[in-house]
Amino acid sequence: MHNFPITDEKVDPAIISSYLQIKKAAAIANQKAGSLAGNKAALIISACNQLLFSGDFKDFCVPAIQGGAGTSTNMNVNEVVSQLAMKISAQGGKAAISIHPNDDVNCAQSTNDTYPTAGKMAMLKKLTPLLNSVDRLCQTLADKAEEYADAIKVGRTQLQDAVPTTFGRSFSAYASLFHRDYDRLKKAAEVLRVVNLGGTAIGTGINTTSEYQEQIIPTLNKVAHLSLIQADDLVDATQNSDAFTTISSAMKMLAADLSKFSNDLRLLSSGPQAGLNELVLPKKAAGSSIMPGKVNPIIPEVVNQVAFEVIGNDVTVTMAAESGQLELNAFEPIMFRAILMSEQHLVKAVTTLVDNCVAGIKVNVDHCRHEVEHSSIAATILSPLLGYEETTRLIKTAVAHKQSVKELVKEQRLLPNQLIDELFSPEVLTNAKKLNSKHSVASSSN
Amino acid sequence: MHNFPITDEKVDPAIISSYLQIKKAAAIANQKAGSLAGNKAALIISACNQLLFSGDFKDFCVPAIQGGAGTSTNMNVNEVVSQLAMKISAQGGKAAISIHPNDDVNCAQSTNDTYPTAGKMAMLKKLTPLLNSVDRLCQTLADKAEEYADAIKVGRTQLQDAVPTTFGRSFSAYASLFHRDYDRLKKAAEVLRVVNLGGTAIGTGINTTSEYQEQIIPTLNKVAHLSLIQADDLVDATQNSDAFTTISSAMKMLAADLSKFSNDLRLLSSGPQAGLNELVLPKKAAGSSIMPGKVNPIIPEVVNQVAFEVIGNDVTVTMAAESGQLELNAFEPIMFRAILMSEQHLVKAVTTLVDNCVAGIKVNVDHCRHEVEHSSIAATILSPLLGYEETTRLIKTAVAHKQSVKELVKEQRLLPNQLIDELFSPEVLTNAKKLNSKHSVASSSN
Amino acid sequence: MHNFPITDEKVDPAIISSYLQIKKAAAIANQKAGSLAGNKAALIISACNQLLFSGDFKDFCVPAIQGGAGTSTNMNVNEVVSQLAMKISAQGGKAAISIHPNDDVNCAQSTNDTYPTAGKMAMLKKLTPLLNSVDRLCQTLADKAEEYADAIKVGRTQLQDAVPTTFGRSFSAYASLFHRDYDRLKKAAEVLRVVNLGGTAIGTGINTTSEYQEQIIPTLNKVAHLSLIQADDLVDATQNSDAFTTISSAMKMLAADLSKFSNDLRLLSSGPQAGLNELVLPKKAAGSSIMPGKVNPIIPEVVNQVAFEVIGNDVTVTMAAESGQLELNAFEPIMFRAILMSEQHLVKAVTTLVDNCVAGIKVNVDHCRHEVEHSSIAATILSPLLGYEETTRLIKTAVAHKQSVKELVKEQRLLPNQLIDELFSPEVLTNAKKLNSKHSVASSSN
Amino acid sequence: MHNFPITDEKVDPAIISSYLQIKKAAAIANQKAGSLAGNKAALIISACNQLLFSGDFKDFCVPAIQGGAGTSTNMNVNEVVSQLAMKISAQGGKAAISIHPNDDVNCAQSTNDTYPTAGKMAMLKKLTPLLNSVDRLCQTLADKAEEYADAIKVGRTQLQDAVPTTFGRSFSAYASLFHRDYDRLKKAAEVLRVVNLGGTAIGTGINTTSEYQEQIIPTLNKVAHLSLIQADDLVDATQNSDAFTTISSAMKMLAADLSKFSNDLRLLSSGPQAGLNELVLPKKAAGSSIMPGKVNPIIPEVVNQVAFEVIGNDVTVTMAAESGQLELNAFEPIMFRAILMSEQHLVKAVTTLVDNCVAGIKVNVDHCRHEVEHSSIAATILSPLLGYEETTRLIKTAVAHKQSVKELVKEQRLLPNQLIDELFSPEVLTNAKKLNSKHSVASSSN
Repeated sequence: MHNFPITDEKVDPAIISSYLQIKKAAAIANQKAGSLAGNKAALIISACNQLLFSGDFKDFCVPAIQGGAGTSTNMNVNEVVSQLAMKISAQGGKAAISIHPNDDVNCAQSTNDTYPTAGKMAMLKKLTPLLNSVDRLCQTLADKAEEYADAIKVGRTQLQDAVPTTFGRSFSAYASLFHRDYDRLKKAAEVLRVVNLGGTAIGTGINTTSEYQEQIIPTLNKVAHLSLIQADDLVDATQNSDAFTTISSAMKMLAADLSKFSNDLRLLSSGPQAGLNELVLPKKAAGSSIMPGKVNPIIPEVVNQVAFEVIGNDVTVTMAAESGQLELNAFEPIMFRAILMSEQHLVKAVTTLVDNCVAGIKVNVDHCRHEVEHSSIAATILSPLLGYEETTRLIKTAVAHKQSVKELVKEQRLLPNQLIDELFSPEVLTNAKKLNSKHSVASSSN
Repeated sequence: MHNFPITDEKVDPAIISSYLQIKKAAAIANQKAGSLAGNKAALIISACNQLLFSGDFKDFCVPAIQGGAGTSTNMNVNEVVSQLAMKISAQGGKAAISIHPNDDVNCAQSTNDTYPTAGKMAMLKKLTPLLNSVDRLCQTLADKAEEYADAIKVGRTQLQDAVPTTFGRSFSAYASLFHRDYDRLKKAAEVLRVVNLGGTAIGTGINTTSEYQEQIIPTLNKVAHLSLIQADDLVDATQNSDAFTTISSAMKMLAADLSKFSNDLRLLSSGPQAGLNELVLPKKAAGSSIMPGKVNPIIPEVVNQVAFEVIGNDVTVTMAAESGQLELNAFEPIMFRAILMSEQHLVKAVTTLVDNCVAGIKVNVDHCRHEVEHSSIAATILSPLLGYEETTRLIKTAVAHKQSVKELVKEQRLLPNQLIDELFSPEVLTNAKKLNSKHSVASSSN
Repeated sequence: MHNFPITDEKVDPAIISSYLQIKKAAAIANQKAGSLAGNKAALIISACNQLLFSGDFKDFCVPAIQGGAGTSTNMNVNEVVSQLAMKISAQGGKAAISIHPNDDVNCAQSTNDTYPTAGKMAMLKKLTPLLNSVDRLCQTLADKAEEYADAIKVGRTQLQDAVPTTFGRSFSAYASLFHRDYDRLKKAAEVLRVVNLGGTAIGTGINTTSEYQEQIIPTLNKVAHLSLIQADDLVDATQNSDAFTTISSAMKMLAADLSKFSNDLRLLSSGPQAGLNELVLPKKAAGSSIMPGKVNPIIPEVVNQVAFEVIGNDVTVTMAAESGQLELNAFEPIMFRAILMSEQHLVKAVTTLVDNCVAGIKVNVDHCRHEVEHSSIAATILSPLLGYEETTRLIKTAVAHKQSVKELVKEQRLLPNQLIDELFSPEVLTNAKKLNSKHSVASSSN
Repeated sequence: MHNFPITDEKVDPAIISSYLQIKKAAAIANQKAGSLAGNKAALIISACNQLLFSGDFKDFCVPAIQGGAGTSTNMNVNEVVSQLAMKISAQGGKAAISIHPNDDVNCAQSTNDTYPTAGKMAMLKKLTPLLNSVDRLCQTLADKAEEYADAIKVGRTQLQDAVPTTFGRSFSAYASLFHRDYDRLKKAAEVLRVVNLGGTAIGTGINTTSEYQEQIIPTLNKVAHLSLIQADDLVDATQNSDAFTTISSAMKMLAADLSKFSNDLRLLSSGPQAGLNELVLPKKAAGSSIMPGKVNPIIPEVVNQVAFEVIGNDVTVTMAAESGQLELNAFEPIMFRAILMSEQHLVKAVTTLVDNCVAGIKVNVDHCRHEVEHSSIAATILSPLLGYEETTRLIKTAVAHKQSVKELVKEQRLLPNQLIDELFSPEVLTNAKKLNSKHSVASSSN
C-alpha cells in the first residue's frame, strides 16, 4: 500500500462490488468444473455474499490510482475474501478450512481478465442513473417547449440579432440534442457489456477448464444482472482499451453539449437590467458577499465546470489508452478512475440542472416579444419579395431613423398593407405559417 | 479576404465541390417550386456543372480559417457561380441575363443551412477512402495472422515477460481492434448524413416554399449520391455540433489505436542487436546521416505523429463545439478544417502503414521460439497443479541457477515426465490445447 | 518521399533556411578545424548562400509530417547542397569537385543535433513577428483605455450586473494581460536559444573535433544572428523536449487569453438591438447571405478559432514530447509543424485583431451610462453605511417598484441628500474617488 | 449546499486555512482603518486562530466543485467565523456580541478578491513540498549518475541501436531535465504570489478605505508568510486567469517529463529474460495473481498515470480559463480543484518514484557492456576515417557474417591495429576521449 501514497481516494466501491460478484460467480463455475472443492466454493460464496450484503468495504484499502494494472486490487479482494471465508469456516469453534487467495479465490482467473471486467461492470452500474438523468432532462425540456411554444423571441447567430424564433423551438432543439446524447451513452453501454472474463493471462485462457469457460459468464449474469457477453477475441479484449475511449468519448460529447446549453442559459438570463434578461432562472442562493441582491446562475455554472472536468478526463483516458503496450494496458486504473468520476459527476450535474434550474425556468414573454417588434432583422421576410439589396436599404434607413421597418414599408407603400401585416405576424416571421407562394415568386420572375 | 490573412490554406476543395452540388440542386428545386425562372435555373446549373467538371477552383479563394460561420465561403460560391452563369448567358454575343448572387444563386438558402451541409458532404466524401484503408489494414493483419499462426512468442504484460502467445493471435487481435474502428467510422457516417438543408436562417426555413422543401434533399441526392437525410428538427440541426464531435471522436479513437499499434511495432522491431528484434519491418530509408547501416521504423513513426495530430484536433473540435452560442455555432470553419485534415492525414497514414510496413513484416520465428524456451514465466502452467507458492519457489530457484523450470521439475520429480512434456508443449503453453482437467483438479481438492 | 504521402505540405521554409545556415556555419567551422578541405568548404558555403539568397526552396520536397526524427529533412538538405556545390565547382567547364552529402556537407553533424537546432532557429524567427504583434495589441489597448478612460459602464460578474466600472479600466486590464503574454513568449525565446548543435549522435559529440566544438556556435551566430547558446548537457538537450512544450504552453496561454478577450468583444457588441450593444466593432463584411443588413463580429470569431487550434496543437505537442524514448525524441517533426503553425496563425490572428477590430472599436458611451444609472446593483455603495441586509431590502423594493435605489434612499430619508449624490457619482461608484472614511465607519461601530 | 451535490469532496483544507488567514488579516487591517470596532476585530481574530490551530474544518462543508465563483466558500467561512466569534464573546455567561458575517467578517472584502487570493495561497502552500520532491529527484539522479558514471551501454534512437553512451550520462541528462522543471515551478510560484486582495468587487476596491489598502497585504504576510504582493492592476488580476494556466502548464511539462522518464525506466527494465534488462528496479510487490514470480514496474506505472491525469487537468484548467467572461472568471472552483489535485498527486508520485524506485535502481553493468561489444553501430566511429559508404558496407558484411565490425576491420587491415583498438575503446566510443584529430582529417582531405 505504501507504494502508492498518491491519494487517500480508495478504489471505487462499484469496482469492489463487481469484483465480489466475479469471485462469487467464479467459485460457482469452478465448483461445477470440478476445479474447486464444494466446501471451499461454499465458503467463498458466503464470504462474497456477506460483503456484498453489508456493503462494508473498509478492508478494501487499495488507492484508486495504483501501478500494476489492477493487481493490487485483485490481490486485495482475494485476501479479504479468503480471510473472511476461513473465518466463516471456523464459526462455532470448528477447525478453519484453508482457503488460498490465489489458488482458490483467484482460481481460473487473472488480474488481466477480472480487473477490466470489474471495471466495465462498475461503469455499467453508474451508467443507469446517468441515462435516467439525461432522460429526465429531455422530458423537462419537452415540457418547457410545450409551455413556451408560442413565446416569440429574437433569434441570434454569432450573437447578432437574427430572424425571430420561439422558445418552444429552442427548448425542443435542446431536447433533440440530449436525446442523441442518451442514444450515444446507450450504445456505449453495449460496448461495455463485452468482457474478457475467462481470458486469464493475456487472453489465452491459460489455467481454465472448458467447463469453467461455459459457466462463468452465464453464472455472473445471474449474480449481477448486467447482460455481459464474453468477447470473441479474448486476446484483443485484454490488450485493447477502445471500450474505455468509447464511453469516455460519449461522455465528452455530452459534456460539450451540456456546457453549450449552460452557456446559453447563463447568457439568456444575463442582467437582469443590463443583460438579455429573456430567461429567469430559479434563484438558488445569495449571489454576492459584497453586492446585495445579486443572484447568479450557479447551477449552469457548476454544470460548465463538470463539463470542463469531463473533457479533461477524456484527454487522460485517451493518453492512457494510447500508452498501452503489447498484451496489456497497464494504465487501466487511471482510466477507471477518470471514467467513473466523470459518470458520477455528470449524473449529479444533470440532476441538479433538471431539478434546480430547468424545471423552474421562466420566460420573460413580454420582454421577448417587445424585442422582436423592435428588431429590424425581422425584415428578412421582405427579401424574397423586394430583393436582398432593396431590403438592406430599407433596414439601414429604418435603423438610421429609429423607425420600424414595418412602418417604413407601409409609409413607402412598397407592398399592400394587408400583405405587410401578414408578413410581420409572428406565425409568418417564425415560418410557422408559410406565405402564399404567389408573392414569393414575384422577385425572381423578374 | 484581407480580414482573414491567417493562412494561405484555402477552403478544402471537397467543401467547394459540395457547395456547387448544393447550388445546382437548389436551382433545380427552386425552379420546380416556381421561385426561380427556368432560364436562370438553367444558367446556374450550367455554371455549377462546368466548375464541377473542370475542378478548377482557383476563384474560390477564401481561406480555410475564417470568421463569420461560413458566410464568406457561401458568398464566394454565390459570386463565382453568378458571374460564370452570366458569362455563359452572354455567350455568342447575347445580352447577359442578370443572375443575382443572393436572390438567385442563394435562393431559398442561407449560410446557416448550406455551410454545415456542405461540410458534412465533404466529410462523407473523405470517409470512403478512410474506411477503405482501415478495411485493407484489417485484411492485411488477418493475412499476417494466418502466415504466423503458429509463431510462438513470449507474451508481455507491463513490459515484463508473461505467458507465451503466438503472433497469429497478436495480429488477429489488432485486426479485431481495427474492425471496431471501421464500424465506429461507419456509424459516424450515418450521423453525418443527417443535414439541415432547407432550414435557411437558424432552422426556421424562412424564405423557402413547401415545394422547395419537398424537392431539395431528393434532388441533392441525385446530384451527389450521398444518401443525405433532412433532420427532423432543423433548429437543433442548425445550432448543435455533435455530429462533428462524433466523427472527430471516432477518428480520435482510431488514432489512439493506431498509435498503440505503431508503438508495439516499433518496440517489437527494436534492436536489431540490443532490442527485442522479434519483428523485421521493411527497410524504407537510410536511417541516419551519421550512423551508417542504421534502419529506423519510420512508417510507424509517421503514424504515431498523425495520431498525435488527430488527438489534438479532437480537442480543437470539442472546444469549438462547446463554444457555439444560441441559434448557431460560429466556429464551424475550424471544426471543418480540423476534421477534414484528420480524415486526410489518417487515410494516408493508414495506407502507408499497410503498404510500406504491415504487408512486408517478417517475424523472427526462431528467435521468438528461443525466447519462450528460455523464459521461466512459462512455468505459470504448473500453478494449478503445484499451487502458486510452490511454483513461485521453483521459478526463483530456476532463475538463481540459470536452469530451465522444466528441467528443474523433472529433476525434482514433482510430476510425471510425460505430463511435464505435455505441459511445456507450445499448444498447451499457449492454451491452444486444454490440459486434461483431472490434473488441474488435483491442487484445489487438497 | 513516397513513404510519407501524408500531406502536400512541405517542411516549413524557416526550417530549411535555418538548416542552410547550419550547413554554412559547419563548413566554416570544419575548415578551421581541419576536417574539411578549403575548396570543399568554399563550395558548400557558396551553395548555401545561393539558396538562402534566392529563397528558392523547390528542391526541398520532404513533407512536413515525416517519420525518422528529421533524417529525411537533413538528408534532403545535404543532397541539395552537395549537388549545387558540385554544380558550382563545374562552372566554366571545370571538372566537378566531388562533395559528399554525408562526409562533407554533414561533416561533424548528425540529424540528432542539426534537426532540433534548425527547428529552434525557425521558431525563434517566427517569434519576433509574434512578439511585435502582441506588443502592438498592448499599445492599441492602452490607447483605447485612454480614449475611453471615463466611459462608465455596468460591470458584470457571472454575466449578472455588478458594480460599475469604466471602459478605461477594461481596456487597461486587457493590456496588462497581454503584457504578461508578451513576457512569457520572450522567456520562451530564451529557452529556445539553447541548442544541442555539436552533440552529433545522441549528444556524445562523436565524430567532432574540439576545434569544431569551439567554432560552431559563434560561427552560426555570425551567420544567423539569433544569439544561440550551446547546451551544457548535450545528452539532455538531445533527448528532452521541454523547450518545445515551453513555447507551446506559452502560446496556449496566449490563445486562451485571446479567446477570452474575443468572447468579451463579441458579447459586448452583441445586438445591435437585442443585445448588450456597448461596443461597436468596425464593420468588415456583409454578415449574412439571407438576412440583409446583418453585421457579424468576424474578426474576433477568427481569433477564437485560431485559439482553439493552438490549444489543440498544445495537446499534440505534449503527447509527442511525452512519447520520446531514451536518447531521442522521434516525434520532433509533428512538434515542429504544430508549433510553427501556431506561431504563424497567432501572429496573423493578432495582427488582424489589432488592425481590423481593436483599433476601430467605438464605445456606445451614452448607452453605457444609461445602463449604469438604471442598474440597482450600484447600490452596493450603500452597504458599508446601511449594512448588507438593509441594502438588500432597498434593492428588492426598488426593483419591485421599478424605481431607482437612489431615489428610494432619498425618499426614505435614510441618508443626507448631499451624501447620496456624492455616493452615486460616477467617481465614487467606480471607486476612482474614495468616500470620506467617517461615513463608512458608521455601520460597523454599532 | 444541496445545489451542488456533485461530489462528496470538500473544498481543499489549504483553501480553508488560507481563507481564515485572510479573514484574520482583514480584521486587523479593518480595525486599524477604523472600519471595524476593536472588540469585534479581536473576536474575529480569536475565532480564526482557534480554527487554524485546531485544524478542525468539519463545518466547512461546501463541495469542491461549486457554482458561483467561490461565493459559497466565502459565505461558509464568513458564517463559521461569525458564529464562533459570537460564541467566544458569550463565554463565561456574557451577553454575546453580534458579529455579522457580511458586514463584519467580510468587511472591505468580496468573494471576487478573497477567493482567488485564497486559491493562490493554497497553491503556494502545496508548491513547497512539490519543489522539495523534485529537488530530491534531481539529487538522487545525480548520485546514480556518479555511481554508474562508467557503465557503458548501447544508445538508442528511434528504439534502434545507436552509438554507445553511459548510464552516467543518462542519469545526468534526467537530472538536467528535472532541474529545469524545478526552475519552471519556482517561476510559477512568483506569479502566484501576485494577488488581487483589496480589489473587492471586480477589482474596483469599492467599500475599502485607503488605510485598509495600505495594511492588508503586509498584515497578511505577517500572518501567512507567503510573501504576497498586491497586483498593480486589480481589475486585470480579478478577471484574468493566466496565473492559473501558468502553474498548470508548469505541472503539465513536469508530467510529460516524468512520464517520459518512467517510460524509459520501464523499457530499460523490461524482461527480465525477453527484454532489455539493463536496469533492475527495486521489487515492490508480487506482480501477478496468476503468473508466479512476476515482478512489475509498478512505481513508474503509477507515475505515468498521475502524469496522464495532470495533462488532462491542464486541459480542464485551460478551458475554464478561456471561458471566463468580462469582469470575473466564474470557473475558478474547478481550476482550483484541478490544480491542487495535480500538485498533491505529483508530490506523492515524485516522492514514491524517488524512494521506492530511483534510489534503489541497479544497472546490469556486465550485460550492458556485453551489448555494446556486440553492437555493430559502434562502427560509426569509423565513418570519419573510412567514409559513410565504406562503413555502411562493413557493417552490413559484419551483420551478415555475425562477425564484429572491429574484427572485420582488423581482418581486412583497413586501419592499423593500434588505432582500431583505440577507436573501439569505451572512452573513444562514447566520445569521453577525443580521437587525435590527425586521423579524422584523413577522409575529408581526399
